[in-house]
Amino acid sequence: MENNGHIQSGKYAADISSIKDAKLRIESFIHKTPIMSSEYLNSVSGRKLFFKCECFQKGGAFKFRGASNAIFSLGNDQAVKGVVTHSSGNHAAAVSLAAKLRGIPAYIVIPKNAPDCKVENVRRYGGKIFWSEATMQSRESVSTKVMEDTGAILIHPFNDGRIISGQGTISLELLEQIPQIDTIIVPISGGGLISGVALAAKAIKPSIRILAAEPRGANDAAQSKAAGRIITLPETNTIADGLRAFLGDLTWPIVRDLVDEVIVVEDKEIVQAMKMCYEILKVAVEPSGAIGLAAVLSHSFQQNPAWKDCSNIAIIVSGGNVDLGILWESYNK
Amino acid sequence: MENNGHIQSGKYAADISSIKDAKLRIESFIHKTPIMSSEYLNSVSGRKLFFKCECFQKGGAFKFRGASNAIFSLGNDQAVKGVVTHSSGNHAAAVSLAAKLRGIPAYIVIPKNAPDCKVENVRRYGGKIFWSEATMQSRESVSTKVMEDTGAILIHPFNDGRIISGQGTISLELLEQIPQIDTIIVPISGGGLISGVALAAKAIKPSIRILAAEPRGANDAAQSKAAGRIITLPETNTIADGLRAFLGDLTWPIVRDLVDEVIVVEDKEIVQAMKMCYEILKVAVEPSGAIGLAAVLSHSFQQNPAWKDCSNIAIIVSGGNVDLGILWESYNK
Repeated sequence: MENNGHIQSGKYAADISSIKDAKLRIESFIHKTPIMSSEYLNSVSGRKLFFKCECFQKGGAFKFRGASNAIFSLGNDQAVKGVVTHSSGNHAAAVSLAAKLRGIPAYIVIPKNAPDCKVENVRRYGGKIFWSEATMQSRESVSTKVMEDTGAILIHPFNDGRIISGQGTISLELLEQIPQIDTIIVPISGGGLISGVALAAKAIKPSIRILAAEPRGANDAAQSKAAGRIITLPETNTIADGLRAFLGDLTWPIVRDLVDEVIVVEDKEIVQAMKMCYEILKVAVEPSGAIGLAAVLSHSFQQNPAWKDCSNIAIIVSGGNVDLGILWESYNK
Repeated sequence: MENNGHIQSGKYAADISSIKDAKLRIESFIHKTPIMSSEYLNSVSGRKLFFKCECFQKGGAFKFRGASNAIFSLGNDQAVKGVVTHSSGNHAAAVSLAAKLRGIPAYIVIPKNAPDCKVENVRRYGGKIFWSEATMQSRESVSTKVMEDTGAILIHPFNDGRIISGQGTISLELLEQIPQIDTIIVPISGGGLISGVALAAKAIKPSIRILAAEPRGANDAAQSKAAGRIITLPETNTIADGLRAFLGDLTWPIVRDLVDEVIVVEDKEIVQAMKMCYEILKVAVEPSGAIGLAAVLSHSFQQNPAWKDCSNIAIIVSGGNVDLGILWESYNK
């Protein structure tokens, strides 16, 4: 595992230099998100926990960092015909918002089973919606058609150096806000977030541990780490709708080399952690956003002697876009 | 209406001097709560909105400011036998926590119909619970018995200069954080919060407007302002469980003189504003905490020419303690 702090430039799709460039490019657009903490959750976990609240980021998730870095990296000739992406979630809203700020069209291919609130976010930021079936095949074929028709350029949600670099700006902020951090727990899906976070954090502070948090029903990253190669799953089954993607060829090498462990948690642990985020922190998170807290409270983390001296732990609360319709219905009865 | 900035010292139960003293007394215990904002909510309301998030205060509500000021104001001889209060809500948790920090017992009389999450908060902070019936008569008689048995001193939730002064520290922080504020919208119940906020804000910035937000089903403050005397209601009916109290003899003169208007909103407007707090701001608020946003979006505020030039509006998000059981049940199905 390469965690001695000397990460060879050019080895991966991004590095500390591209992440610092991303920061300069996007810092006037993004929110510097606050760190929340709770003495109660510290006592429950036996550690000092620092919640980096990317749910307060524009668009309600960290995705705006990568999307704005990618979109503002485009030359005018590339940008003029707009951008396209296929996503059921936070990346779609982030691309819509970043494109709006750049003054170019965003074409968003959304599978018909996407959560209402995430579709609503795309509309709010002016993305032009094209519907697809839920399958990846349908998403990709509709996207290809849109690209052919419009000349728009594809912004991939994670397997892209500009996206990874944008997400990595979280670590630059975090280590400035709380320099004593010794561990960062990051939700893992396609790997864009954790790749950027790991590259920046280990470049700045080589001793830092990067732990991934993954739901049991979409544990391709844990399986990939165990097998030493990318494993994809025939299907996924988790309430964490943001964590269903699989690693890509650009994120996998970074995850393989820089992620110290993938902690797998059950959906019921995610719900319990969500409850704590709402009831203790008063922060409205989506299931994916709560998985870091679920991981730190899990038996497998708490009992692992390797993590016994993880004392100052940052938890990336990745997003807060969740349908709470049942709650509003209960009030309106 | 006395809003020319010259508020006579000693006229009310608190003043800018007692509020500044409170700040010095409590600032090492309390959180300086952050201000949140949303470009989307600014565009919806046509104003710049600054949400002062007291839901992130210790204990999940502004109440900890007043409770800690009152409890740390006590002489050792007064404090030694502990404190007592009767409350179904946030004041009870706040008194428990402040007493715990002072190292004295807190006896909390709780009506049997209190929300679970608020009882849980009292337990979390080590308050000793005594149950009463839901009526004020039962609450008071149980409290009296506890005082007789223990020698503990009563900490009233709002009708007390030390409580008013503690709550007033919000304005000191707010006007330091966002000096351009021209209007503050504050939930009103017993009047402790708005009294402190108004006294401090109008002392510092005489031109500032203080608007109260009150639910239709507990609109005693609006009726009192209209009648020129304290009006109490035979019953209340609102989802905002924190806003059911009536003005007291110490808060009424301040509300009468310094509150520019009471904006009355419907429960359905409160639910709509809660939804926006969760979905847009990603902040978990209780109904009472969302009422300020409901007020600024209401027809009666938006159409009133008197508030046309309210451009930079602070909204006090008073608390975030709410039972979301139905949500967790839906996930655990």
